Amino acid sequence: MQVVKGPQVFPRSEYLRRLNAVKTRMAERDTAAVVITDNAHITYLTGSVARSYDTRGLVILSSREEPVFILRWMDVAAAVQETFMERGSIIGYTEDLVGDPDKDGHDAVIDFLLDQGLGQCSIGFELCNLTLYSGEKFKCRLPQARMDDFSTVVTRIRTLKSDLEISVMREAAAISDAGVLRAAEVMRPGIREADAIAEIVRTLARGANGKPGTWIATPYLCATSRIGNPHTTWSEDILREGSQVNLEIAGVRHDYHAPICRTYILDKPSDRLLRIHEAQLAGLEAGLNVIRSGAVSGEVAKVIHSTTEKHGFKKRSRAGYSIGINWMENTTSLKLGDTTVLEPNMTFHLHLGSWVEEDFGYVLSESIRVTESGVEVLTKAPRQLFILD
Amino acid sequence: MQVVKGPQVFPRSEYLRRLNAVKTRMAERDTAAVVITDNAHITYLTGSVARSYDTRGLVILSSREEPVFILRWMDVAAAVQETFMERGSIIGYTEDLVGDPDKDGHDAVIDFLLDQGLGQCSIGFELCNLTLYSGEKFKCRLPQARMDDFSTVVTRIRTLKSDLEISVMREAAAISDAGVLRAAEVMRPGIREADAIAEIVRTLARGANGKPGTWIATPYLCATSRIGNPHTTWSEDILREGSQVNLEIAGVRHDYHAPICRTYILDKPSDRLLRIHEAQLAGLEAGLNVIRSGAVSGEVAKVIHSTTEKHGFKKRSRAGYSIGINWMENTTSLKLGDTTVLEPNMTFHLHLGSWVEEDFGYVLSESIRVTESGVEVLTKAPRQLFILD
Repeated sequence: MQVVKGPQVFPRSEYLRRLNAVKTRMAERDTAAVVITDNAHITYLTGSVARSYDTRGLVILSSREEPVFILRWMDVAAAVQETFMERGSIIGYTEDLVGDPDKDGHDAVIDFLLDQGLGQCSIGFELCNLTLYSGEKFKCRLPQARMDDFSTVVTRIRTLKSDLEISVMREAAAISDAGVLRAAEVMRPGIREADAIAEIVRTLARGANGKPGTWIATPYLCATSRIGNPHTTWSEDILREGSQVNLEIAGVRHDYHAPICRTYILDKPSDRLLRIHEAQLAGLEAGLNVIRSGAVSGEVAKVIHSTTEKHGFKKRSRAGYSIGINWMENTTSLKLGDTTVLEPNMTFHLHLGSWVEEDFGYVLSESIRVTESGVEVLTKAPRQLFILD
Repeated sequence: MQVVKGPQVFPRSEYLRRLNAVKTRMAERDTAAVVITDNAHITYLTGSVARSYDTRGLVILSSREEPVFILRWMDVAAAVQETFMERGSIIGYTEDLVGDPDKDGHDAVIDFLLDQGLGQCSIGFELCNLTLYSGEKFKCRLPQARMDDFSTVVTRIRTLKSDLEISVMREAAAISDAGVLRAAEVMRPGIREADAIAEIVRTLARGANGKPGTWIATPYLCATSRIGNPHTTWSEDILREGSQVNLEIAGVRHDYHAPICRTYILDKPSDRLLRIHEAQLAGLEAGLNVIRSGAVSGEVAKVIHSTTEKHGFKKRSRAGYSIGINWMENTTSLKLGDTTVLEPNMTFHLHLGSWVEEDFGYVLSESIRVTESGVEVLTKAPRQLFILD
């Protein structure tokens, strides 16, 4: 029996708004079709959140309201259920394109483009996302088409959230907060890092305010000898008296992430730890004071960097980055020299984390939204060094 | 203060064995250096399991025992702690290569290659993994180097596991089993799918036999109206009397995955469900009976397909794929027509799952190891339809 649509996160009008923004760029550049291959972009433009390893392509045609989603036959039912699109806009390709070194789902995308008579048109591709292999395949099988680079088009559109998206990010942020508080409850000397993670991921799945987490983003629990770097996950160690834990997690709703960092100390904190907390707290609050519509990204970063420096800690990394679907959007950084002018409903992970020596670092961050007059802090967990002594 | 090495999963000799296998191919092809960019390959060749979004490159030089790991400065400490390599083999690149549309870590890799005087040599790249952007950058900044495609070299080496790797996969499989059993305990009418996931991921983190999970692989819980497709994760629904749940999870140890599928029914099973269980069980056992060193992959698949067909269910998808680091290795499929000859210590996810209608499917699978005389089933959870009535 055929499946029917499941509950939709956003109304059809929201997806059409997003698609129309892409189509406006297509019209400006006289591009008849765009092939979207970045999974986050596919989610953004369709509502699809199923996770398949197999090649997928979303083709946006200037002549057609809905895009055409081309994916492995076994993933068609999920696409029908999850996306806003009619069944006729979803095409399953056959099993012979799977697990073959010479063929994949992009061949089905090319077949579709040829079938539409687009072989001699300008076609947009996300070149920054396409592998050399796939790029060669498209060039080879569409020799008369002109490849137009649409790498940054959808990313840029994603940067400005709708109020509907902001609502979902608030839900995700509440889950992040719950994770932070659960960590404070369970981390004690003698428990394994993995056991703390177990309780944290359980909380991230259960969610908050009746809204479950819809995915488990990788949690980063850097403890004890690993607090000098940000990207280890957790280890097989046991937390000890005196262990510091730098935690970075993100609640997720419908693939929208709201990251947050907090630091925990399983003992009385050292002076150095108290000082770096004060420095990052001051930097974070200074940033919040200057972020508003019209502010320049690099200038915000400058305020943050100079504040932490006044407190004796030089921050080497950028002060944040754009967020939304997935942990990070590769668009705007809150980074010295960045000239982006902030606009309402841009969202950032405002990240004060500093890894000052190989064996010492501290993390403090919030997920935030730029507003007309200032900022909305989406994450609301206590902005403190958690002292669990 | 500088960090020191953490506990190592494998001895130095194991990594040198893996690297020597790559170097043998380099010598055959007169390639002076290979740039490894696939994250799973970097893990395989170094022991690094930290997860960073930033560009990284591992350069293997024919003239040097250890490879050179080039990554963002803040990730150096983790690399020192996690990998088998000396500090001198780890190079951090500066922050200006981060969050910049025109520069990234590959520029640091190129600087290193030029510094080594390799600008006019044959250099191996994993072209199937490199984006068009990165490929252009390498071509542009190394105009006199010859790009040699090493896409499949490390993947092929990874296919044959050492006994040390098999031990780790057994540990991962025990975690998978624990997840399957925990799911059977917690899934009841009235609980949310997310709450079941919460308990499952908690179990995957806590691990089994004193060995914690070292990462949470995405769990696929396709329930009720979503059992006709394999790649949705979980939804906001509540499990109901009569709900069927197709669960696909993987315990993970040091990035080695051991996937397993089991199906659960929250009621008396229908005849159709019992019949498809019998079909898949028969197919799986038929496969186990013919898998051994020397068997041909496609012939194994044929036995499996014909067995399920005899039981009234035509399986449309391949019967399995190579596993190891990450859920899937893109090498051998247990697929009709595949001519790979099986060898001892190849490992597969032997996957009988069938999605026979858009609203109906069933899953049953094991992680297995090929032996001289047959097969070792790594996952050991009861091979049954779990009836939770």
